[in-house]
Parts: sequence; structure tokens; C-alpha cells
Amino acid sequence: MPGNSFGTLFRVTTFGESHGYGIGAVIDGCPPRISLQPEDFYAAMAARRPGKSPSDTPRREKDTVKILSGVFKGLTTGTPITLLILNRDVNSRPYEILSTLFRPGHGDYTYFKKYGHFDYTGGGRASARETAARVAAGVVADKILYPLGIEFTAFTVELGGIRIKKIDLNYINKSPLLCPDPDASEEMIDLISKVRQEGDSLGGIVEARISGCPPGLGEPVFDKLEADLAKAVMSIGAVKGVEIGEGFGAARLRGSENNDSITPDGFASNHAGGILAGISNGETIIIRAAVKPIPTIRLEQDTINREGQPAKLKMQGRYDISAIPRIIPVITAMLKIVLADHYLRQRAIMTE
Amino acid sequence: MPGNSFGTLFRVTTFGESHGYGIGAVIDGCPPRISLQPEDFYAAMAARRPGKSPSDTPRREKDTVKILSGVFKGLTTGTPITLLILNRDVNSRPYEILSTLFRPGHGDYTYFKKYGHFDYTGGGRASARETAARVAAGVVADKILYPLGIEFTAFTVELGGIRIKKIDLNYINKSPLLCPDPDASEEMIDLISKVRQEGDSLGGIVEARISGCPPGLGEPVFDKLEADLAKAVMSIGAVKGVEIGEGFGAARLRGSENNDSITPDGFASNHAGGILAGISNGETIIIRAAVKPIPTIRLEQDTINREGQPAKLKMQGRYDISAIPRIIPVITAMLKIVLADHYLRQRAIMTE
Amino acid sequence: MPGNSFGTLFRVTTFGESHGYGIGAVIDGCPPRISLQPEDFYAAMAARRPGKSPSDTPRREKDTVKILSGVFKGLTTGTPITLLILNRDVNSRPYEILSTLFRPGHGDYTYFKKYGHFDYTGGGRASARETAARVAAGVVADKILYPLGIEFTAFTVELGGIRIKKIDLNYINKSPLLCPDPDASEEMIDLISKVRQEGDSLGGIVEARISGCPPGLGEPVFDKLEADLAKAVMSIGAVKGVEIGEGFGAARLRGSENNDSITPDGFASNHAGGILAGISNGETIIIRAAVKPIPTIRLEQDTINREGQPAKLKMQGRYDISAIPRIIPVITAMLKIVLADHYLRQRAIMTE
Amino acid sequence: MPGNSFGTLFRVTTFGESHGYGIGAVIDGCPPRISLQPEDFYAAMAARRPGKSPSDTPRREKDTVKILSGVFKGLTTGTPITLLILNRDVNSRPYEILSTLFRPGHGDYTYFKKYGHFDYTGGGRASARETAARVAAGVVADKILYPLGIEFTAFTVELGGIRIKKIDLNYINKSPLLCPDPDASEEMIDLISKVRQEGDSLGGIVEARISGCPPGLGEPVFDKLEADLAKAVMSIGAVKGVEIGEGFGAARLRGSENNDSITPDGFASNHAGGILAGISNGETIIIRAAVKPIPTIRLEQDTINREGQPAKLKMQGRYDISAIPRIIPVITAMLKIVLADHYLRQRAIMTE
Repeated sequence: MPGNSFGTLFRVTTFGESHGYGIGAVIDGCPPRISLQPEDFYAAMAARRPGKSPSDTPRREKDTVKILSGVFKGLTTGTPITLLILNRDVNSRPYEILSTLFRPGHGDYTYFKKYGHFDYTGGGRASARETAARVAAGVVADKILYPLGIEFTAFTVELGGIRIKKIDLNYINKSPLLCPDPDASEEMIDLISKVRQEGDSLGGIVEARISGCPPGLGEPVFDKLEADLAKAVMSIGAVKGVEIGEGFGAARLRGSENNDSITPDGFASNHAGGILAGISNGETIIIRAAVKPIPTIRLEQDTINREGQPAKLKMQGRYDISAIPRIIPVITAMLKIVLADHYLRQRAIMTE
Repeated sequence: MPGNSFGTLFRVTTFGESHGYGIGAVIDGCPPRISLQPEDFYAAMAARRPGKSPSDTPRREKDTVKILSGVFKGLTTGTPITLLILNRDVNSRPYEILSTLFRPGHGDYTYFKKYGHFDYTGGGRASARETAARVAAGVVADKILYPLGIEFTAFTVELGGIRIKKIDLNYINKSPLLCPDPDASEEMIDLISKVRQEGDSLGGIVEARISGCPPGLGEPVFDKLEADLAKAVMSIGAVKGVEIGEGFGAARLRGSENNDSITPDGFASNHAGGILAGISNGETIIIRAAVKPIPTIRLEQDTINREGQPAKLKMQGRYDISAIPRIIPVITAMLKIVLADHYLRQRAIMTE
Repeated sequence: MPGNSFGTLFRVTTFGESHGYGIGAVIDGCPPRISLQPEDFYAAMAARRPGKSPSDTPRREKDTVKILSGVFKGLTTGTPITLLILNRDVNSRPYEILSTLFRPGHGDYTYFKKYGHFDYTGGGRASARETAARVAAGVVADKILYPLGIEFTAFTVELGGIRIKKIDLNYINKSPLLCPDPDASEEMIDLISKVRQEGDSLGGIVEARISGCPPGLGEPVFDKLEADLAKAVMSIGAVKGVEIGEGFGAARLRGSENNDSITPDGFASNHAGGILAGISNGETIIIRAAVKPIPTIRLEQDTINREGQPAKLKMQGRYDISAIPRIIPVITAMLKIVLADHYLRQRAIMTE
Repeated sequence: MPGNSFGTLFRVTTFGESHGYGIGAVIDGCPPRISLQPEDFYAAMAARRPGKSPSDTPRREKDTVKILSGVFKGLTTGTPITLLILNRDVNSRPYEILSTLFRPGHGDYTYFKKYGHFDYTGGGRASARETAARVAAGVVADKILYPLGIEFTAFTVELGGIRIKKIDLNYINKSPLLCPDPDASEEMIDLISKVRQEGDSLGGIVEARISGCPPGLGEPVFDKLEADLAKAVMSIGAVKGVEIGEGFGAARLRGSENNDSITPDGFASNHAGGILAGISNGETIIIRAAVKPIPTIRLEQDTINREGQPAKLKMQGRYDISAIPRIIPVITAMLKIVLADHYLRQRAIMTE
């Protein structure tokens, strides 16, 4: 299969480029008779929308999700749900230089090598704008999961090297960076302001938690729940690392420390991050993603043109300083898509 | 699709349980007229075989790979290649206790919750023995890649908290732990010996490098090369984290540091780990995997039985102290399978 | 995978309902740098459009294909091509009765049983209108095949029991029924006129020929070229039978008659219809499809309502008398999609 | 995906060649806790085995199915079920001539063109022997369907041009040709005897009926139940045509004749063959397959060698005169695989 679809039974195909007509998703396999209205998308799309946090660019897309198919009288029909988000606030002029120069840290060079040409306006298919379609699809996935009591929380645990020291889940939505530590949040905001002036950018780490997941989701061997979660998260452009539960920290634990004892009331600890042998164990699923700094910076960089000659690149305009926090709803959306898919897969074989 | 297959065009399906008749793989999509003999599997299977390193159990499977189909007069035919490895050194008696008790850190509990019953002898389908089939499949993948100059190296960068301080690639095969730092290797061996006596186990980190990969492999959006690599590696039982290039370290870099400048002679650095926007850029692909400590330990642990009542579990026998170094050829095999698959995918659309 | 996608490497996903916003297709896997403009769709869409032949309803959709994504500066980019056709000439009022009654011969009853509710306006997802998206996708497939010299011809060989007696390929486009026999064409037109007055409908048989197909396309065992062609054609709503080469006639031949001798200049005959053991042999591929009579008729019919009580149904309005000839470009489109897919699949493994 | 797998959730991958080590199937996605023993395969394998009917070759394979994986204590575990059937009665010498000559009507020429070389012994991968693996997989599918009351009957409706005139379902198993008309059965036996002496072969038509199928199985658009059934049946080597319900006969009916009226007690007729708009309607599913005459005949034929020079081919030995009746359990097996798959697919989305 080509690479623009994800999932086995709950299958999401995204399409569109940053500066084209629009971006969207076709969701095939959604069960019927689920209520779905345009308003259901408002909150998630707003969370991903730029211009809300100190690390964002001021570009403001309205990002209204239009439901083109698959819903009748307000209920899903079981046929493909097509979601379309028009591109409105598009100015391709600053990108004209990319018809000759490759941006370091971006896909310009690799798309050119792969395809021989590519849509360079606004990042084309490789733009973070593509993730708006994922967020929209995640809303539909959530419609399957929420009634089951499966809930998702995600927050910033590190930004520009500043790590949270405590987790106050109630503070997350008060922090413009979705950071659960008020002090760290302040520090991060200050750092962003400083780095913005320098014309540079920042990376960070996001943690997501999935509570209420029943035991039994995930498949043996290749489609382990953690494998599909890792792929889902790593398929987001800025993500360069993924870990489950203790993750890289598990490498430093002894077996006696890392094993979670089992008691009549459940697991005594959750080093495993809610997944054993690729299958959910009923505990909270914990996953962290390493987010690289935004590659588009205002500082001058060395690069080459399409003929291979050296060149200097200096991007004009204003850009996001960090993919955090806008990437957080994207990560959550991908987790939801994975869970909805594995839930349907498990339904197909459940036998009691 | 169910979860025991991997890959789109070079598609590997594994089967078998630890204490059943045998384990194996069916490889569908391998191009024709590639030389393939039983001897081609010797080196890779020997590398994965237990009993060679200080961290291994002494169980000795001969692990001869039998080619059941897909090869005629020594050449692949383009039809499914079936590889079978018989289980010989099998003693299921120590596992009889698992008909009632769940081992902490293992899939016993989750398989039981998912399927209602499971093969508990030797770990059944969830046993690391399944990975022998992956290693065999990796040998076939390598037959496609090696003539293209794509080569794989993998080694231990950390074990039980001991991190390498230097990388001497020539030392890797001299170290029983495939550790490129002679001093660290010695320290690790000492630690293993100590932990073995304690009845405990150790985790670590493995790094793999893929050199000679041409630019252009990987698909946009969901089947990014790094996403498929992450899934491939995370689908190995003991792996709880994956990172590409700078990985989690990228979270602490500025964009100006993390971006790899492009010069007429190639990239000036390789923070990206050889992949940009999900597509290989021609540089060495670098991937690291966090390996958790082996969950089977000789120390007594708290658990429950199938009726939910508390119980103590104390495994008899001798077990691996660490999945490292035996996991290294498994990781390499999975990387090979991903690369072979993406190479064939790219061939289908290449146009010049 | 859910059921709205087709193909492995050239993968078409269709979406949309008859009376919704529009219908469309996402094509993932199309090679890059193929010229594609809105005008490329004019001829094929016009051929499928109603109101051109004596057997059609007078509904007139303009059926302009809008390219939403995947094309940059007039060339495909290798990323998903999204095609959208708006629904304009929509009057759902005559369908309101279908909120309670099931039409015989239609999917109303089965969609209701499968999903618990369904979009009954204009046939919803089960409407023949969905095939407009297939025709559009077929245009893209043809862009891959035409430069290779692979060409498609299709025509009516039977309608309402009237069978052609000769084949004049030059006459096909002169016949409003795409019938290659002028006399039979006239007879068919007369029959349609008579049946229209009776309020009834007609079926028929279509033959398609694919010339210029190189040998080697098709996969062993399940994805035989003829199996994928059969699925492709049988997936069109009105088709109830498919045959390749001699087809059902082969059942009455001896082996010595049905076998095609091989000569230095090619096959001496083509009973096989261009496919041997599931793989193209270089001869013209010949496939026939049995098309059932349109189930929507103006005659009164017995049915039940959603509560299971008997009812009479009499559809008002004007309807197509036969799916022929409008189904012909749909069949051709599906054949093109299969061929493009198998061509790309073969490219991935070709080795010389 | 490569071509040796079939099904989405109940996924069958077959492997093996006629004269290799053996042939087999891996079934991934079978639900757990289904009783499965080697004896379960006896009847189906015996039905497919050669040497039982007048149209067969006397080669006698014992065709014992060995369960290599996926079953524990007599119950399926939900992990891949691997079935292996050894090749025993193998004599490759008569096939040595095929290292240079292509047999008319066989895949020799097309495999050579596709792959550049192929296993020509006993037909290699293209041999009808591959279907033994399908029959074995069908037994597992039946284990899912039988408890639901879904049952399969298949029989010969035509052989060598002799068509049945009545259907006595009780006679099927009394006829060595699985023909439900005693008189026709006798005629067919006489014809086979005559054609055997001539060194020629015969084709025919098989009808299969699936009773007890609940409404709602099948997916809209591409994975219509009839499309997947058509592919399944057309993927069997000797089949060149498939029809559902009235099939090609529907082309000659008026809509008022072909539509099945709906009554409070079900459908008043079954022209549709149990499927409407691609979804089962609860009536008996009826499907017919056109079977070409066996291409291997003892009569001398014209062909070419690998260098393209003309040659005469005269096969020695004894061969089947017709694929009927041995193909009947193969057709039934494929139908079972399709139904099991669509049943699991429907379970994933069922909502009441």
C-alpha cells in the first residue's frame, strides 16, 4: 500500500498540501450510527490552530472541518467519512526561493531526490498543515473510544531543555504551552521569547496518557500495540523518538525493579506503561515523544541549490519557535486512531 | 490485517511457538533469481543463538533454517519463501506453573485477557524464540540490499547503566556483548556476572547504523521511513523506546544546531540520522533502541493466579540476564526487512 | 481493510453519496511527473454522463472533476491525488418514500440490515453515481498505461437478449449504445423504446479488450490478473457475472480445442483471453461482464416496510432503462485501475 | 501486498510447490478457542485427493495435514495457524522436458516471462496441488461458520457439454462426479471414458450454494461480497468465469422479472443469488464457476522452446481428464474463506 493511509479496520487516508485547495481525510471503517456534526471538530481544531501559544506563528487558519460524506441525518453510515479543511490564509510568495534552494532540516532535498519534483509552496505535502487532517480524524476515533471510557491526556514535559519538576494535570489547560508545571511553564515562555529574538527554534518532549483502556488491545508480534503507537507518533514530522512506560529509562533498571507485580487489585506499579507483550494490560498507557526543534529558522544557513551549488538561505517571515504545543493534539489524535483501530480489531475476534 | 505480517511488498509473516513443532516465516514478494541456500543463514542464526555470550542462557538450539518453498535450483522464484526452524531443545515442565500463575513483566496476563487461553509453554507465541524467524527473514532481505551497497552495523551502547565512552567498530565482534568500547565491555561482563548471582536481570541500549542507503526511500506521511523503522524495532518484545539520529537529544538542541547544513559534498552533519521528512537523505541512518531488562528472573515476585488470588512466583532454571547482545541481530534483521520493503516500493514508482 | 479502497500500489479510495456534497476519489501511489489537468477528465466523464443514449435518464450532471491535491504545476507529485465531483442536479423528494420502504433489487434492505440505517436519498452510497469517481480514477490510471501502448476498447455485445452478429470496431462510437453491430444497435434502440413505455428495464453483456499488455503482469495464486479483473468488474453494482477469454464457453471445449498453441510469432489463438495461470501472456486480454436490468422500474412491485409489513412500491420519475451503455466507461475504468496496479507491482520486482 | 495471501481479517497465505518439500498455509486472524485437530481435515482433504473419480489421475497423495502452530491443547490460540502437507508421491522426471518447452494452456510461458525462471517440476507454484492448502484453510474457516448455521453445498451442473436436467441434492455424494442428476452423471462418466482414450480433456460448470448466511455480510463498493467471491473463485487456476444468482442469464431478463419481491416472509424469489448491492440478504447465496478443460493432454501440441523455436510437445503419463470434481472442494474452501473473513469484518462494526 502507498504511505498515506493508516490503520487496518479504522483506516484513515489523508490528502492535500499546505498551499493547495485544502487538506483532508477519508476515514473508512467507522462503525455506523455514531453522532457526528461539524461542531464536534471545533475544540480539537482550535487546539491545533496556530496563533494561540507563545511558540506559534501568527498565521490564522479558520480550519473549519466540512463533512463531505459518510454522515446522514447526523449519524455515521458506515461508509467513508470525508473531511475537508480548506486552505485560506495562503501566501506562496516567500516560498518561491524553494524552487531552487533546499531548506536544511526539511524534506525539500529528499522529496526532490525521491520524486524528481515537489510542491515547495508552504512545505507542500510535508507541511505540518497535513496534521490538521489527522486531528480531524482523531475526533472521529474519539467518538468510538469516549463512550468506552478511554480518555487521553497529553502535556509538555520538556521544552528547550527545561524539564517539568511536577505534574499538575489541572494546570495543563491554563498553560499556553500545555505544561503541567506552572514554574516550568513560565521558564519555557521566557525561553521562547528569547529564542524568537535570536531567530532560532526549540524542541521538547511530550507525554501522553491513555486511561480506561481495557486489557486485550494489541496484536502479537508485529502489530503490537506499542509498535503501532510508535509508528503513529513517529509518523508525525517533528518526532524523532518514542518511548513507552519507562522507555529509555528501563535500560537502566534491573528486572526486579522494572517488572510490575500483579496483585488482586491490579498492577502494583506501571513501569510497563500499560502494555505487556504488545497487548494492553488495563493500566494507563504512557507514551513520550521527542520533538525536534522547528527546522525553519530566520538565521542564515548553508545549503545547495538543485544544481548542487552552494548557497545561503535566510527565511523571511515569522515562524513557530517550537512544534510544542501545537503538536500535542496531533499526537493525541494519532493515539486515538491507533486505539480505535485496535478496539475494532479486538471486537472482530472477541468470543465470550 | 492480523498482526503477524510485516511489510508491503517484501512481506514477512512469522508463525510458531516456543515449544511447538517449530517457528518459521513466509516471505512473499522477494524478487526472483536471487541465490539462496541453507548456508546463507548460518552466520545470522548463530549470532542470535543462545549460549554464546555471558548474558545468555545455556539453552542450545541448533537453529538450522530449512527452506520449504520458493527456491528452485538455488535461486528464488518470486513465489513465497518458507523458512522453518524446528524446536528441539524443549522442556516444558518448568512452565507448568504458568497454567495458573501470570509472570510479571510477561505477556501471560495480557494474552489470557485477550484470548481467554494461551500457550504458556516456553512463552508460546510471545517467546523471544519467535525472533529467530525474523532473523532468518532478515537474511533474505539482506540478499536484496547487500548488492546495492546497503550495509548494517549494530552494537551495544549501554548495558545495566554502563555507557560506552568510545566507538571502535573493529572491536564489536571481539566483544562477547558486541560492545565497541573494550573497557565498557569488560565492565558490562563483570556486572552481568554479579547480577546473575543475584538472580536479577539487566537492560540496555543498542545502536544500529545503515550505510549506503540511497536517498529517496520512505513514503510521505504515515509510512515515513522512520515510522516504519520505529514500528519494526518496537515490535521486538523487549524494546520500549526508539529514536532516530539525535532522537531524544534533539529535544534539547536549537534548530540552528539540529539542522544539518547541505554542502556540494553532502550534509555537513547528521543530526537527522539519515532521514528527512520520512525519506532517506543518503547519509547513514542511525537508530537506537531501549531494551528493557529480561522479565524472567530467579528472584521471588508477587503475582496472581487465573482466579485473581495473590501468589508468589519463583522461576527455577537459568535464564538470560539481558536481551543484549542476542537482540542485536534481531534488530538488524527488522531494519533489513524495512529497507528491502521500501526499496521495492521505491522501484515501483521510480521514473527516470 | 474496509471496503472502499482498491489496489495495492495504485490504490483508489472512493467516497461520497448520490445526494450528498459530492463524490470523489483519493488515488495514492500514482508515480510522479505525469501530466494531469482537469481537461483530461472531460471525455471519460462525458461518456459516463447520463442523458446521452436512448437507455439513459435525462438527469444531467456536469460532472466536472476538480483536482484537490497531488498535482503541482500540472504534474503529479507522487502524493495522493484527490478528485472531487460535486453533486448538483439533486432532488431528494422522490426518495422520501425510501425512508420506510425497501426497493426490490436494490441495496436498501441489505444496507439497513448491515448498518441499522442508511442514506436512502438517490441510492446513497450504493448509487451508480459512485462510479463517476471510478471513471475519474481510471483516467489517472490510463495516464500510466497509455504511454506503454496498453489500450482499452469496450462495447455492447448483448442487450435485452439481442446479441451482436458482427463486430465493427469503427462503428462503436457511432452507436449510441456503443454497439459494434449496426443492425443489432438499431434493434436494441427499438427494444429500449418499447420497454421504456412498459416501465420496465433491460440487462445486457459488455465485452472489453485490452491490447498491448506486456506479458508478466499478474501475481500467482490469489492475485491472479484474472482474479483481480473479476473482482474489479464484479464490484460494479449491476454486474452479476464475469468471464475471461472463452469463459463459460470454455466449459464446453476439449483441452485440445481450448489450449492456445504457441508459435515463434506468438499464440496461434486466444481462447485464454490473454491470461495464463493468472499472468498476462502478451495477447489481447478479453473480459465480458453480465449486466443485470436496472432494478428501478416504474411498474408496481411488492415489498415491505421497515417494520416488515407488506407494501406496494411504484417509483415515479424517469429512470435509465439499462445500465448499458453508461456502465461501459465504468468497466473500462476498473480494468485500467487493475492494470496500472499490476504494472507497478511488476516494476517493483523486475530484475533485468 | 504480494499475491499469495487472501482475506482481510481471516487471512490465508499459501506457500509451496508441487514437487518441493510440501505445500501449506498460514492462517492469521482465526479467533481463539476453536477446537481444531488433525482429524478435522480428513474429509475435505480426501474429497480433493486424486484417484477417487473417473476424471482423476491415479496419483495418490496421502495429504495428511500437520498443524505446525496456533493450536494449544486442541484449541486455536488466536495466533497464526500453520498447516503443512508434505509432498510424497513425486516423480519429477517427466517434467524435465519443461526446462526447455512451454506447455500450451499452462503458466510455463507466463512465469518464464514474469520471473526469468521458474520451478517447472510438476507445475511448481502454478500446480493445482497448491489448492490442497486452500482446502485445508477452508476447513478452519468452516469451524467459524458451521456453528452459525452457514452451510455449503457444491455440485457439477455441466461437464463436457452435458448439462444436468434435475437437481437431487441427495444424489451428489453418490455420484463420483458430485453430479446431482443420476442420468447426467452416467452420461458424463461415459464421456470421460471416451475422452480419456482420445488423450484429450474436458471442462464444465460447478454451482455452489451457501445457506444460512445472515444478512449484512459484504462491504460497499469494492469489497462487495460478490466481488470477493468472484475473486476467490477466479483465483483458482482452471476457472475462467464466475456468476452470481441469475448471472449471465440476468442479462436477458427484464427488471420486473429479475427483481426479487420482498414479502413479510422473506424474498419471493432469488434471482439475485442472495446478494444485493454487495451485501448478503439472508437468502441462499448461489455462485457458478466455469471450469476450463485440463490443459495437460496426451495429444501432441505445437509450442516453442525458451529460445523461441518451434517444437512439438507430447506429454507422457496419465493426467486428470477434468478438474471436475476435484475442483469442487477447492471452490467450497474459497467460499468459506470469504465468508469467514466477511463475518469477522462485520463483527468489528456491529453495534446493537
